[in-house]
Amino acid sequence: MPIIECVPNISEGRRRDVIESIVSAVRRVDGVRVLDHSSDASHNRSVLTLAGDAAPLKQAILSLFEAAVPVIDLRQHSGEHPRLGAVDVVPFVPIEGVTMDACVALARETGAEVARRFNVPVYLYEEASDNPARKNLEDIRRGEFEGLAARMASPGWVPDYGPPAPHPSAGATVIGARMPLIAYNINLATDRLDVAKKIAAAIRYSSGGFRYVKAMGVRLEDRGVVQVSMNLTNYEKTPMYKVFEAVKREAERYGVNVLESEIVGLVPAAALHSTAEYLLQLADFDANQILENKIRESKN
Amino acid sequence: MPIIECVPNISEGRRRDVIESIVSAVRRVDGVRVLDHSSDASHNRSVLTLAGDAAPLKQAILSLFEAAVPVIDLRQHSGEHPRLGAVDVVPFVPIEGVTMDACVALARETGAEVARRFNVPVYLYEEASDNPARKNLEDIRRGEFEGLAARMASPGWVPDYGPPAPHPSAGATVIGARMPLIAYNINLATDRLDVAKKIAAAIRYSSGGFRYVKAMGVRLEDRGVVQVSMNLTNYEKTPMYKVFEAVKREAERYGVNVLESEIVGLVPAAALHSTAEYLLQLADFDANQILENKIRESKN
Repeated sequence: MPIIECVPNISEGRRRDVIESIVSAVRRVDGVRVLDHSSDASHNRSVLTLAGDAAPLKQAILSLFEAAVPVIDLRQHSGEHPRLGAVDVVPFVPIEGVTMDACVALARETGAEVARRFNVPVYLYEEASDNPARKNLEDIRRGEFEGLAARMASPGWVPDYGPPAPHPSAGATVIGARMPLIAYNINLATDRLDVAKKIAAAIRYSSGGFRYVKAMGVRLEDRGVVQVSMNLTNYEKTPMYKVFEAVKREAERYGVNVLESEIVGLVPAAALHSTAEYLLQLADFDANQILENKIRESKN
Repeated sequence: MPIIECVPNISEGRRRDVIESIVSAVRRVDGVRVLDHSSDASHNRSVLTLAGDAAPLKQAILSLFEAAVPVIDLRQHSGEHPRLGAVDVVPFVPIEGVTMDACVALARETGAEVARRFNVPVYLYEEASDNPARKNLEDIRRGEFEGLAARMASPGWVPDYGPPAPHPSAGATVIGARMPLIAYNINLATDRLDVAKKIAAAIRYSSGGFRYVKAMGVRLEDRGVVQVSMNLTNYEKTPMYKVFEAVKREAERYGVNVLESEIVGLVPAAALHSTAEYLLQLADFDANQILENKIRESKN
Protein backbone atom coordinates (compact mmCIF):
# COMPACT_ATOMS: atom_id res chain seq x y z
CA MET A 1 0.00 0.00 0.00
CA PRO A 2 1.32 3.46 -0.88
CA ILE A 3 2.33 5.67 2.04
CA ILE A 4 1.97 9.44 1.90
CA GLU A 5 2.91 11.63 4.83
CA CYS A 6 0.97 14.81 5.55
CA VAL A 7 2.13 17.45 8.04
CA PRO A 8 -0.64 20.01 8.63
CA ASN A 9 0.31 23.04 10.75
CA ILE A 10 -2.51 24.75 12.63
CA SER A 11 -2.46 28.15 14.33
CA GLU A 12 -3.29 26.99 17.85
CA GLY A 13 -0.66 25.87 20.33
CA ARG A 14 -2.15 26.91 23.69
CA ARG A 15 -5.76 25.78 24.21
CA ARG A 16 -5.43 22.05 25.02
CA ASP A 17 -9.15 21.28 24.50
CA VAL A 18 -9.20 22.95 21.07
CA ILE A 19 -6.07 21.10 19.94
CA GLU A 20 -7.40 17.80 21.26
CA SER A 21 -10.74 18.20 19.48
CA ILE A 22 -8.97 18.85 16.16
CA VAL A 23 -6.59 15.90 16.57
CA SER A 24 -9.55 13.67 17.50
CA ALA A 25 -11.42 14.68 14.36
CA VAL A 26 -8.45 13.50 12.30
CA ARG A 27 -8.04 10.28 14.29
CA ARG A 28 -11.64 9.31 13.51
CA VAL A 29 -10.84 9.02 9.79
CA ASP A 30 -10.37 5.36 8.77
CA GLY A 31 -7.05 4.60 7.11
CA VAL A 32 -5.20 7.58 8.59
CA ARG A 33 -2.61 7.19 11.33
CA VAL A 34 -1.61 10.12 13.53
CA LEU A 35 2.12 9.46 13.94
CA ASP A 36 2.79 12.46 16.09
CA HIS A 37 1.47 15.84 17.16
CA SER A 38 3.22 18.56 19.06
CA SER A 39 2.24 22.03 20.19
CA ASP A 40 4.35 25.07 20.94
CA ALA A 41 2.81 27.72 23.19
CA SER A 42 5.17 30.57 22.27
CA HIS A 43 4.69 29.84 18.55
CA ASN A 44 0.98 29.30 19.31
CA ARG A 45 1.03 26.56 16.72
CA SER A 46 0.62 22.77 16.48
CA VAL A 47 2.08 20.34 13.98
CA LEU A 48 0.41 17.01 13.20
CA THR A 49 2.16 14.19 11.37
CA LEU A 50 -0.25 11.91 9.51
CA ALA A 51 0.30 8.91 7.25
CA GLY A 52 -1.98 7.03 4.88
CA ASP A 53 -3.08 6.65 1.29
CA ALA A 54 -4.40 9.56 -0.79
CA ALA A 55 -8.17 9.23 -0.27
CA PRO A 56 -8.12 8.89 3.54
CA LEU A 57 -5.60 11.75 3.85
CA LYS A 58 -7.80 14.04 1.78
CA GLN A 59 -10.71 13.14 4.05
CA ALA A 60 -8.53 13.76 7.14
CA ILE A 61 -7.63 17.26 5.95
CA LEU A 62 -11.28 18.08 5.26
CA SER A 63 -12.16 16.86 8.78
CA LEU A 64 -9.33 18.94 10.18
CA PHE A 65 -10.70 22.10 8.50
CA GLU A 66 -14.19 21.27 9.68
CA ALA A 67 -12.93 21.08 13.27
CA ALA A 68 -10.45 23.99 13.11
CA VAL A 69 -12.18 26.75 11.12
CA PRO A 70 -15.02 27.40 13.64
CA VAL A 71 -12.69 27.51 16.66
CA ILE A 72 -9.52 29.32 15.49
CA ASP A 73 -9.89 33.03 14.82
CA LEU A 74 -6.74 34.65 13.46
CA ARG A 75 -8.06 38.10 14.45
CA GLN A 76 -7.46 36.98 18.05
CA HIS A 77 -4.25 35.04 17.38
CA SER A 78 -0.70 35.98 18.30
CA GLY A 79 2.51 33.94 18.38
CA GLU A 80 6.13 34.00 17.31
CA HIS A 81 5.70 31.89 14.20
CA PRO A 82 4.59 33.52 10.92
CA ARG A 83 1.12 32.38 9.81
CA LEU A 84 -1.49 33.14 7.18
CA GLY A 85 -4.42 30.99 8.27
CA ALA A 86 -6.18 28.95 10.94
CA VAL A 87 -4.97 25.89 9.06
CA ASP A 88 -1.72 27.47 7.95
CA VAL A 89 0.09 24.96 5.76
CA VAL A 90 -0.60 21.43 4.52
CA PRO A 91 2.25 19.60 2.73
CA PHE A 92 1.82 16.12 1.23
CA VAL A 93 5.04 14.09 1.14
CA PRO A 94 5.65 10.90 -0.92
CA ILE A 95 7.18 8.16 1.25
CA GLU A 96 6.71 4.72 -0.26
CA GLY A 97 5.11 3.33 -3.40
CA VAL A 98 3.87 6.74 -4.53
CA THR A 99 5.15 9.42 -6.90
CA MET A 100 5.57 13.13 -6.36
CA ASP A 101 3.07 13.62 -9.20
CA ALA A 102 0.45 11.73 -7.21
CA CYS A 103 1.10 14.01 -4.21
CA VAL A 104 0.79 17.08 -6.42
CA ALA A 105 -2.57 15.80 -7.69
CA LEU A 106 -3.68 15.12 -4.11
CA ALA A 107 -2.66 18.63 -3.00
CA ARG A 108 -4.67 20.19 -5.86
CA GLU A 109 -7.77 18.07 -5.26
CA THR A 110 -7.66 18.75 -1.55
CA GLY A 111 -7.09 22.48 -2.12
CA ALA A 112 -10.04 22.74 -4.49
CA GLU A 113 -12.33 20.91 -2.08
CA VAL A 114 -11.20 22.95 0.95
CA ALA A 115 -11.93 26.19 -0.93
CA ARG A 116 -15.34 24.92 -2.05
CA ARG A 117 -16.51 23.61 1.32
CA PHE A 118 -15.05 26.17 3.69
CA ASN A 119 -14.74 29.26 1.50
CA VAL A 120 -11.07 29.59 2.44
CA PRO A 121 -8.67 30.82 -0.29
CA VAL A 122 -5.92 28.29 -1.05
CA TYR A 123 -2.43 28.92 -2.42
CA LEU A 124 -0.54 25.96 -3.86
CA TYR A 125 3.19 25.76 -3.05
CA GLU A 126 6.40 23.87 -3.75
CA GLU A 127 5.93 21.05 -6.29
CA ALA A 128 2.18 21.68 -6.52
CA SER A 129 2.68 25.25 -7.75
CA ASP A 130 3.45 26.14 -11.36
CA ASN A 131 4.13 29.77 -10.44
CA PRO A 132 7.84 30.42 -9.66
CA ALA A 133 6.91 33.37 -7.41
CA ARG A 134 4.58 31.14 -5.38
CA LYS A 135 6.67 28.03 -4.76
CA ASN A 136 8.47 29.08 -1.60
CA LEU A 137 6.37 29.05 1.58
CA GLU A 138 8.14 32.06 3.08
CA ASP A 139 7.39 34.12 -0.06
CA ILE A 140 3.69 33.25 0.09
CA ARG A 141 3.42 33.90 3.82
CA ARG A 142 5.19 37.30 3.74
CA GLY A 143 3.00 39.96 5.46
CA GLU A 144 1.14 37.23 7.34
CA PHE A 145 -2.57 37.23 8.15
CA GLU A 146 -2.55 40.92 9.00
CA GLY A 147 -1.29 41.86 5.53
CA LEU A 148 -3.30 39.26 3.66
CA ALA A 149 -6.23 41.39 2.46
CA ALA A 150 -3.87 43.96 0.89
CA ARG A 151 -1.67 41.21 -0.55
CA MET A 152 -4.62 39.40 -2.16
CA ALA A 153 -5.77 42.63 -3.77
CA SER A 154 -2.37 43.17 -5.41
CA PRO A 155 -1.40 41.82 -8.87
CA GLY A 156 -0.29 38.20 -9.03
CA TRP A 157 -1.96 37.11 -5.80
CA VAL A 158 -5.28 35.65 -6.95
CA PRO A 159 -5.40 32.36 -5.04
CA ASP A 160 -5.31 29.00 -6.83
CA TYR A 161 -8.70 28.11 -5.38
CA GLY A 162 -11.47 29.94 -3.53
CA PRO A 163 -12.48 33.55 -3.06
CA PRO A 164 -10.12 36.45 -3.97
CA ALA A 165 -10.22 37.77 -0.40
CA PRO A 166 -9.29 36.29 2.99
CA HIS A 167 -11.73 34.24 5.03
CA PRO A 168 -12.60 36.66 7.87
CA SER A 169 -11.36 34.44 10.73
CA ALA A 170 -9.45 31.63 8.97
CA GLY A 171 -7.33 33.69 6.54
CA ALA A 172 -5.88 31.55 3.78
CA THR A 173 -4.19 28.15 3.58
CA VAL A 174 -1.06 27.05 1.73
CA ILE A 175 -1.33 23.47 0.40
CA GLY A 176 1.30 21.62 -1.60
CA ALA A 177 3.61 18.71 -2.14
CA ARG A 178 7.27 18.42 -1.24
CA MET A 179 10.00 15.88 -0.53
CA PRO A 180 10.65 14.82 3.08
CA LEU A 181 12.90 17.25 4.94
CA ILE A 182 16.00 15.97 6.72
CA ALA A 183 17.29 18.05 9.63
CA TYR A 184 21.00 17.30 9.46
CA ASN A 185 23.78 18.87 11.51
CA ILE A 186 27.55 18.50 11.26
CA ASN A 187 29.65 19.38 14.30
CA LEU A 188 33.15 20.70 13.79
CA ALA A 189 36.12 20.14 16.09
CA THR A 190 36.63 23.85 16.69
CA ASP A 191 35.06 26.75 18.60
CA ARG A 192 35.46 29.12 15.63
CA LEU A 193 31.97 30.29 14.70
CA ASP A 194 33.33 32.12 11.62
CA VAL A 195 34.39 28.77 10.15
CA ALA A 196 30.91 27.25 10.61
CA LYS A 197 29.32 30.35 9.08
CA LYS A 198 31.68 30.34 6.08
CA ILE A 199 31.02 26.66 5.43
CA ALA A 200 27.25 27.16 5.74
CA ALA A 201 27.48 30.02 3.21
CA ALA A 202 29.53 27.85 0.84
CA ILE A 203 27.08 24.95 0.73
CA ARG A 204 23.63 26.56 0.93
CA TYR A 205 21.48 27.41 -2.07
CA SER A 206 20.78 31.00 -1.07
CA SER A 207 24.46 31.92 -1.38
CA GLY A 208 25.40 29.78 -4.38
CA GLY A 209 25.70 26.26 -2.94
CA PHE A 210 23.63 23.12 -3.39
CA ARG A 211 20.10 23.52 -4.75
CA TYR A 212 18.39 21.66 -1.86
CA VAL A 213 20.38 22.78 1.18
CA LYS A 214 19.51 25.43 3.76
CA ALA A 215 22.33 26.01 6.24
CA MET A 216 23.58 28.24 9.03
CA GLY A 217 26.54 28.22 11.38
CA VAL A 218 25.75 28.09 15.10
CA ARG A 219 27.68 27.73 18.34
CA LEU A 220 26.96 24.77 20.67
CA GLU A 221 27.67 26.60 23.94
CA ASP A 222 27.53 23.55 26.18
CA ARG A 223 30.06 21.61 24.12
CA GLY A 224 32.44 24.39 23.13
CA VAL A 225 32.21 23.53 19.42
CA VAL A 226 30.41 24.93 16.39
CA GLN A 227 27.87 23.34 14.07
CA VAL A 228 26.75 23.60 10.47
CA SER A 229 23.00 23.25 11.00
CA MET A 230 21.09 22.24 7.88
CA ASN A 231 17.79 21.35 6.29
CA LEU A 232 18.09 19.03 3.31
CA THR A 233 14.97 19.65 1.25
CA ASN A 234 15.45 16.99 -1.42
CA TYR A 235 17.76 14.12 -0.48
CA GLU A 236 17.34 12.50 -3.90
CA LYS A 237 18.70 15.47 -5.80
CA THR A 238 21.19 16.70 -3.18
CA PRO A 239 22.15 13.51 -1.30
CA MET A 240 23.42 13.41 2.27
CA TYR A 241 26.86 12.04 1.37
CA LYS A 242 27.43 14.87 -1.09
CA VAL A 243 26.63 17.44 1.60
CA PHE A 244 28.78 15.65 4.19
CA GLU A 245 31.75 15.42 1.89
CA ALA A 246 31.44 19.05 0.82
CA VAL A 247 31.37 20.23 4.44
CA LYS A 248 34.37 18.04 5.26
CA ARG A 249 36.33 19.42 2.29
CA GLU A 250 35.46 23.03 3.15
CA ALA A 251 36.46 22.42 6.79
CA GLU A 252 39.85 21.12 5.65
CA ARG A 253 40.54 24.51 4.06
CA TYR A 254 40.48 25.98 7.57
CA GLY A 255 42.47 23.11 9.10
CA VAL A 256 39.32 21.93 10.91
CA ASN A 257 38.08 18.34 11.30
CA VAL A 258 34.52 17.06 11.32
CA LEU A 259 33.73 15.81 14.81
CA GLU A 260 30.46 13.99 14.04
CA SER A 261 27.11 14.52 12.41
CA GLU A 262 23.55 14.03 13.61
CA ILE A 263 20.12 13.53 12.13
CA VAL A 264 17.46 15.35 14.14
CA GLY A 265 14.14 13.54 14.07
CA LEU A 266 13.20 11.28 11.20
CA VAL A 267 15.01 10.28 8.02
CA PRO A 268 13.66 8.31 5.05
CA ALA A 269 15.35 4.90 4.73
CA ALA A 270 16.24 5.67 1.10
CA ALA A 271 18.48 8.57 2.21
CA LEU A 272 20.59 6.13 4.23
CA HIS A 273 20.53 3.48 1.51
CA SER A 274 21.82 5.87 -1.15
CA THR A 275 24.66 6.80 1.22
CA ALA A 276 25.61 3.13 1.64
CA GLU A 277 25.36 2.58 -2.12
CA TYR A 278 27.71 5.50 -2.68
CA LEU A 279 30.36 4.38 -0.20
CA LEU A 280 30.25 0.75 -1.35
CA GLN A 281 30.11 1.68 -5.06
CA LEU A 282 27.10 -0.62 -5.29
CA ALA A 283 25.89 -1.33 -8.82
CA ASP A 284 22.27 -2.28 -9.59
CA PHE A 285 21.10 -2.25 -6.01
CA ASP A 286 17.33 -2.50 -5.53
CA ALA A 287 15.33 -1.80 -2.35
CA ASN A 288 13.64 -5.18 -2.91
CA GLN A 289 16.95 -6.74 -1.88
CA ILE A 290 16.45 -5.52 1.67
CA LEU A 291 15.51 -8.54 3.73
CA GLU A 292 12.97 -6.73 5.90
CA ASN A 293 11.17 -5.34 2.84
CA LYS A 294 10.93 -8.84 1.39
CA ILE A 295 9.50 -10.18 4.65
CA ARG A 296 6.98 -7.37 4.89
CA GLU A 297 5.83 -7.79 1.30
CA SER A 298 5.17 -11.45 1.89
CA LYS A 299 2.62 -10.53 4.54
CA ASN A 300 0.29 -9.06 1.97
CA MET B 1 6.34 -8.68 16.45
CA PRO B 2 9.76 -10.36 16.41
CA ILE B 3 10.93 -11.76 13.08
CA ILE B 4 13.14 -14.83 12.87
CA GLU B 5 14.23 -16.28 9.57
CA CYS B 6 14.68 -20.04 9.19
CA VAL B 7 16.34 -21.66 6.16
CA PRO B 8 15.87 -25.45 6.25
CA ASN B 9 17.76 -27.47 3.61
CA ILE B 10 16.25 -30.83 2.61
CA SER B 11 17.91 -33.62 0.62
CA GLU B 12 15.44 -33.75 -2.24
CA GLY B 13 15.72 -31.57 -5.33
CA ARG B 14 14.24 -33.75 -8.07
CA ARG B 15 10.84 -35.25 -7.21
CA ARG B 16 8.41 -32.32 -7.66
CA ASP B 17 5.53 -34.02 -5.82
CA VAL B 18 7.68 -34.85 -2.78
CA ILE B 19 9.05 -31.30 -2.59
CA GLU B 20 5.58 -29.81 -3.00
CA SER B 21 4.11 -31.99 -0.22
CA ILE B 22 6.86 -30.90 2.18
CA VAL B 23 6.47 -27.20 1.33
CA SER B 24 2.69 -27.53 1.72
CA ALA B 25 3.09 -29.05 5.18
CA VAL B 26 5.08 -25.95 6.22
CA ARG B 27 2.64 -23.54 4.59
CA ARG B 28 -0.21 -24.98 6.64
CA VAL B 29 1.38 -23.73 9.89
CA ASP B 30 -0.29 -20.53 11.10
CA GLY B 31 2.07 -17.61 11.64
CA VAL B 32 4.77 -18.88 9.28
CA ARG B 33 5.41 -17.33 5.88
CA VAL B 34 7.25 -19.19 3.15
CA LEU B 35 9.28 -16.38 1.57
CA ASP B 36 10.97 -18.56 -1.00
CA HIS B 37 11.84 -22.11 -1.93
CA SER B 38 14.18 -23.34 -4.61
CA SER B 39 15.33 -26.78 -5.73
CA ASP B 40 18.49 -27.86 -7.50
CA ALA B 41 18.37 -31.16 -9.38
CA SER B 42 22.13 -31.71 -9.66
CA HIS B 43 22.55 -30.95 -5.95
CA ASN B 44 19.38 -32.99 -5.32
CA ARG B 45 18.54 -30.49 -2.61
CA SER B 46 15.90 -27.84 -1.80
CA VAL B 47 16.20 -24.72 0.31
CA LEU B 48 13.17 -23.12 1.98
CA THR B 49 13.18 -19.61 3.43
CA LEU B 50 10.67 -19.15 6.24
CA ALA B 51 9.88 -16.20 8.50
CA GLY B 52 7.90 -15.91 11.70
CA ASP B 53 8.05 -15.84 15.46
CA ALA B 54 9.68 -18.62 17.53
CA ALA B 55 6.69 -20.83 18.37
CA PRO B 56 5.24 -21.05 14.82
CA LEU B 57 8.71 -21.66 13.34
CA LYS B 58 9.35 -24.54 15.74
CA GLN B 59 5.99 -26.01 14.71
CA ALA B 60 6.88 -25.52 11.03
CA ILE B 61 10.14 -27.44 11.43
CA LEU B 62 8.37 -30.29 13.21
CA SER B 63 5.81 -30.39 10.38
CA LEU B 64 8.64 -30.37 7.87
CA PHE B 65 10.26 -33.41 9.54
CA GLU B 66 6.89 -35.17 9.73
CA ALA B 67 6.48 -34.71 5.96
CA ALA B 68 10.11 -35.34 4.94
CA VAL B 69 11.33 -38.27 7.07
CA PRO B 70 8.93 -40.91 5.62
CA VAL B 71 9.64 -39.93 1.98
CA ILE B 72 13.37 -39.15 1.79
CA ASP B 73 15.70 -42.14 2.12
CA LEU B 74 19.37 -41.18 2.13
CA ARG B 75 20.32 -44.77 1.26
CA GLN B 76 18.85 -44.05 -2.17
CA HIS B 77 20.04 -40.41 -2.40
CA SER B 78 22.80 -39.02 -4.58
CA GLY B 79 23.70 -35.46 -5.50
CA GLU B 80 26.61 -33.06 -5.77
CA HIS B 81 26.01 -31.27 -2.48
CA PRO B 82 27.37 -32.77 0.77
CA ARG B 83 24.60 -33.94 3.15
CA LEU B 84 24.13 -35.82 6.37
CA GLY B 85 20.37 -36.18 6.64
CA ALA B 86 16.95 -36.12 4.97
CA VAL B 87 16.48 -32.75 6.65
CA ASP B 88 20.10 -31.73 6.39
CA VAL B 89 20.49 -28.36 8.13
CA VAL B 90 18.16 -25.92 9.92
CA PRO B 91 19.56 -22.48 10.82
CA PHE B 92 17.54 -19.90 12.77
CA VAL B 93 18.51 -16.30 12.00
CA PRO B 94 17.58 -13.22 14.09
CA ILE B 95 16.15 -10.44 11.88
CA GLU B 96 14.11 -7.94 13.88
CA GLY B 97 13.15 -7.50 17.52
CA VAL B 98 14.85 -10.71 18.58
CA THR B 99 18.26 -11.60 20.05
CA MET B 100 20.74 -14.23 18.96
CA ASP B 101 20.27 -15.84 22.38
CA ALA B 102 16.57 -16.31 21.64
CA CYS B 103 17.47 -18.02 18.35
CA VAL B 104 19.96 -20.27 20.15
CA ALA B 105 17.24 -21.26 22.63
CA LEU B 106 14.84 -21.93 19.74
CA ALA B 107 17.43 -24.11 17.96
CA ARG B 108 17.98 -26.17 21.10
CA GLU B 109 14.27 -26.62 21.85
CA THR B 110 13.55 -27.56 18.27
CA GLY B 111 16.52 -29.97 18.18
CA ALA B 112 15.43 -31.73 21.37
CA GLU B 113 11.86 -32.11 20.11
CA VAL B 114 12.95 -33.36 16.66
CA ALA B 115 15.12 -36.04 18.30
CA ARG B 116 12.33 -37.11 20.65
CA ARG B 117 9.57 -37.29 18.05
CA PHE B 118 11.42 -38.63 15.03
CA ASN B 119 14.33 -40.50 16.63
CA VAL B 120 16.77 -38.53 14.46
CA PRO B 121 20.12 -37.58 16.08
CA VAL B 122 20.67 -33.80 16.14
CA TYR B 123 23.96 -31.87 16.16
CA LEU B 124 23.87 -28.22 17.19
CA TYR B 125 26.05 -25.81 15.17
CA GLU B 126 27.31 -22.24 14.97
CA GLU B 127 26.03 -20.04 17.82
CA ALA B 128 23.90 -22.88 19.25
CA SER B 129 26.94 -25.12 19.80
CA ASP B 130 29.22 -24.83 22.82
CA ASN B 131 31.71 -27.27 21.30
CA PRO B 132 34.44 -25.53 19.23
CA ALA B 133 34.94 -28.67 17.11
CA ARG B 134 31.23 -28.72 16.28
CA LYS B 135 30.49 -25.11 15.33
CA ASN B 136 31.36 -25.20 11.65
CA LEU B 137 28.82 -26.94 9.40
CA GLU B 138 31.49 -28.34 7.07
CA ASP B 139 33.31 -29.95 10.01
CA ILE B 140 30.14 -31.64 11.23
CA ARG B 141 29.14 -32.83 7.77
CA ARG B 142 32.56 -34.28 6.85
CA GLY B 143 32.19 -37.92 5.70
CA GLU B 144 28.52 -37.29 4.87
CA PHE B 145 25.67 -39.76 5.38
CA GLU B 146 27.75 -42.68 4.16
CA GLY B 147 30.40 -42.12 6.84
CA LEU B 148 27.95 -41.15 9.60
CA ALA B 149 27.67 -44.46 11.46
CA ALA B 150 31.45 -44.72 11.84
CA ARG B 151 31.72 -41.03 12.77
CA MET B 152 29.04 -41.28 15.46
CA ALA B 153 30.84 -44.26 16.99
CA SER B 154 34.08 -42.29 17.30
CA PRO B 155 35.03 -40.16 20.36
CA GLY B 156 33.55 -36.67 20.56
CA TRP B 157 30.63 -37.34 18.22
CA VAL B 158 27.78 -38.21 20.58
CA PRO B 159 24.97 -36.01 19.22
CA ASP B 160 23.48 -33.16 21.24
CA TYR B 161 20.06 -34.81 21.15
CA GLY B 162 18.71 -38.21 20.17
CA PRO B 163 20.14 -41.68 19.64
CA PRO B 164 23.93 -42.27 19.36
CA ALA B 165 23.53 -43.82 15.90
CA PRO B 166 22.10 -42.58 12.59
CA HIS B 167 18.42 -42.84 11.74
CA PRO B 168 18.43 -45.64 9.11
CA SER B 169 16.93 -43.58 6.28
CA ALA B 170 17.03 -39.97 7.59
CA GLY B 171 20.64 -39.86 8.89
CA ALA B 172 21.20 -36.92 11.23
CA THR B 173 20.26 -33.23 11.24
CA VAL B 174 22.35 -30.14 12.01
CA ILE B 175 20.32 -27.41 13.76
CA GLY B 176 21.62 -24.06 14.94
CA ALA B 177 21.53 -20.28 15.01
CA ARG B 178 23.59 -17.85 12.96
CA MET B 179 23.62 -14.27 11.71
CA PRO B 180 22.22 -13.49 8.25
CA LEU B 181 24.72 -14.12 5.45
CA ILE B 182 25.48 -11.38 2.93
CA ALA B 183 26.75 -12.49 -0.48
CA TYR B 184 28.91 -9.52 -1.45
CA ASN B 185 31.18 -9.19 -4.49
CA ILE B 186 33.64 -6.48 -5.45
CA ASN B 187 34.65 -6.19 -9.10
CA LEU B 188 38.12 -4.90 -9.95
CA ALA B 189 39.05 -2.85 -13.01
CA THR B 190 41.59 -5.44 -14.18
CA ASP B 191 41.70 -8.87 -15.81
CA ARG B 192 44.47 -10.05 -13.48
CA LEU B 193 43.07 -13.05 -11.59
CA ASP B 194 46.21 -13.21 -9.39
CA VAL B 195 45.30 -9.80 -7.94
CA ALA B 196 41.76 -10.92 -7.02
CA LYS B 197 43.14 -14.11 -5.46
CA LYS B 198 45.76 -12.23 -3.44
CA ILE B 199 43.17 -9.75 -2.16
CA ALA B 200 40.77 -12.58 -1.26
CA ALA B 201 43.56 -14.31 0.68
CA ALA B 202 44.41 -11.06 2.48
CA ILE B 203 40.89 -10.41 3.74
CA ARG B 204 39.44 -13.85 4.50
CA TYR B 205 39.49 -15.49 7.92
CA SER B 206 40.94 -18.79 6.76
CA SER B 207 44.19 -17.13 5.71
CA GLY B 208 44.49 -14.52 8.46
CA GLY B 209 41.97 -11.83 7.47
CA PHE B 210 38.69 -10.69 8.97
CA ARG B 211 36.95 -13.09 11.35
CA TYR B 212 33.61 -13.13 9.47
CA VAL B 213 34.70 -13.09 5.82
CA LYS B 214 34.93 -15.97 3.36
CA ALA B 215 36.44 -14.91 0.02
CA MET B 216 37.82 -16.16 -3.26
CA GLY B 217 39.09 -14.54 -6.44
CA VAL B 218 37.22 -15.39 -9.65
CA ARG B 219 37.27 -14.29 -13.26
CA LEU B 220 34.11 -12.77 -14.86
CA GLU B 221 34.73 -14.10 -18.37
CA ASP B 222 31.94 -12.14 -20.06
CA ARG B 223 33.14 -8.81 -18.68
CA GLY B 224 36.89 -9.29 -18.88
CA VAL B 225 37.40 -8.32 -15.24
CA VAL B 226 38.04 -10.17 -11.98
CA GLN B 227 36.01 -10.30 -8.79
CA VAL B 228 36.59 -10.78 -5.09
CA SER B 229 33.58 -12.97 -4.30
CA MET B 230 32.64 -13.03 -0.62
CA ASN B 231 30.31 -14.27 2.06
CA LEU B 232 30.03 -11.96 5.05
CA THR B 233 28.91 -14.16 7.93
CA ASN B 234 28.44 -11.50 10.60
CA TYR B 235 27.91 -7.96 9.32
CA GLU B 236 27.71 -6.57 12.86
CA LYS B 237 31.19 -7.73 13.82
CA THR B 238 32.83 -7.40 10.39
CA PRO B 239 30.85 -4.59 8.72
CA MET B 240 30.51 -4.14 4.97
CA TYR B 241 32.34 -0.81 4.84
CA LYS B 242 35.35 -2.30 6.61
CA VAL B 243 35.53 -5.09 4.03
CA PHE B 244 35.04 -2.68 1.12
CA GLU B 245 37.72 -0.30 2.32
CA ALA B 246 40.17 -3.15 2.98
CA VAL B 247 39.66 -4.53 -0.55
CA LYS B 248 40.09 -1.04 -2.02
CA ARG B 249 43.31 -0.51 -0.08
CA GLU B 250 44.71 -3.90 -1.05
CA ALA B 251 43.82 -3.25 -4.71
CA GLU B 252 45.72 0.05 -4.60
CA ARG B 253 48.90 -1.90 -3.76
CA TYR B 254 48.63 -3.48 -7.22
CA GLY B 255 47.68 -0.25 -8.95
CA VAL B 256 44.14 -1.55 -9.44
CA ASN B 257 40.87 0.35 -8.94
CA VAL B 258 37.55 -0.94 -7.62
CA LEU B 259 35.05 -0.93 -10.48
CA GLU B 260 31.88 -1.52 -8.44
CA SER B 261 30.42 -3.87 -5.89
CA GLU B 262 27.23 -5.92 -5.76
CA ILE B 263 25.02 -7.55 -3.19
CA VAL B 264 23.66 -10.88 -4.42
CA GLY B 265 20.22 -11.62 -3.03
CA LEU B 266 19.09 -10.15 0.26
CA VAL B 267 20.76 -7.83 2.76
CA PRO B 268 19.55 -6.82 6.23
CA ALA B 269 18.66 -3.12 6.40
CA ALA B 270 20.98 -2.68 9.40
CA ALA B 271 24.02 -3.59 7.26
CA LEU B 272 23.25 -0.64 4.98
CA HIS B 273 22.43 1.67 7.87
CA SER B 274 25.73 1.02 9.63
CA THR B 275 27.52 1.82 6.36
CA ALA B 276 25.71 5.17 6.12
CA GLU B 277 26.44 5.90 9.78
CA TYR B 278 30.11 5.23 9.17
CA LEU B 279 30.41 7.46 6.10
CA LEU B 280 28.41 10.32 7.67
CA GLN B 281 30.14 9.98 11.08
CA LEU B 282 26.66 9.85 12.56
CA ALA B 283 26.52 10.09 16.35
CA ASP B 284 23.67 8.59 18.38
CA PHE B 285 21.68 7.36 15.43
CA ASP B 286 18.76 5.10 16.27
CA ALA B 287 16.77 2.88 13.87
CA ASN B 288 13.62 4.43 15.35
CA GLN B 289 14.58 7.61 13.49
CA ILE B 290 13.85 5.89 10.19
CA LEU B 291 10.58 7.30 8.93
CA GLU B 292 9.27 4.03 7.52
CA ASN B 293 9.92 2.21 10.82
CA LYS B 294 7.99 4.87 12.68
CA ILE B 295 5.07 4.56 10.25
CA ARG B 296 5.04 0.76 10.52
CA GLU B 297 5.17 0.82 14.30
CA SER B 298 2.17 3.09 14.43
CA LYS B 299 0.09 0.42 12.70
CA ASN B 300 0.33 -1.90 15.69
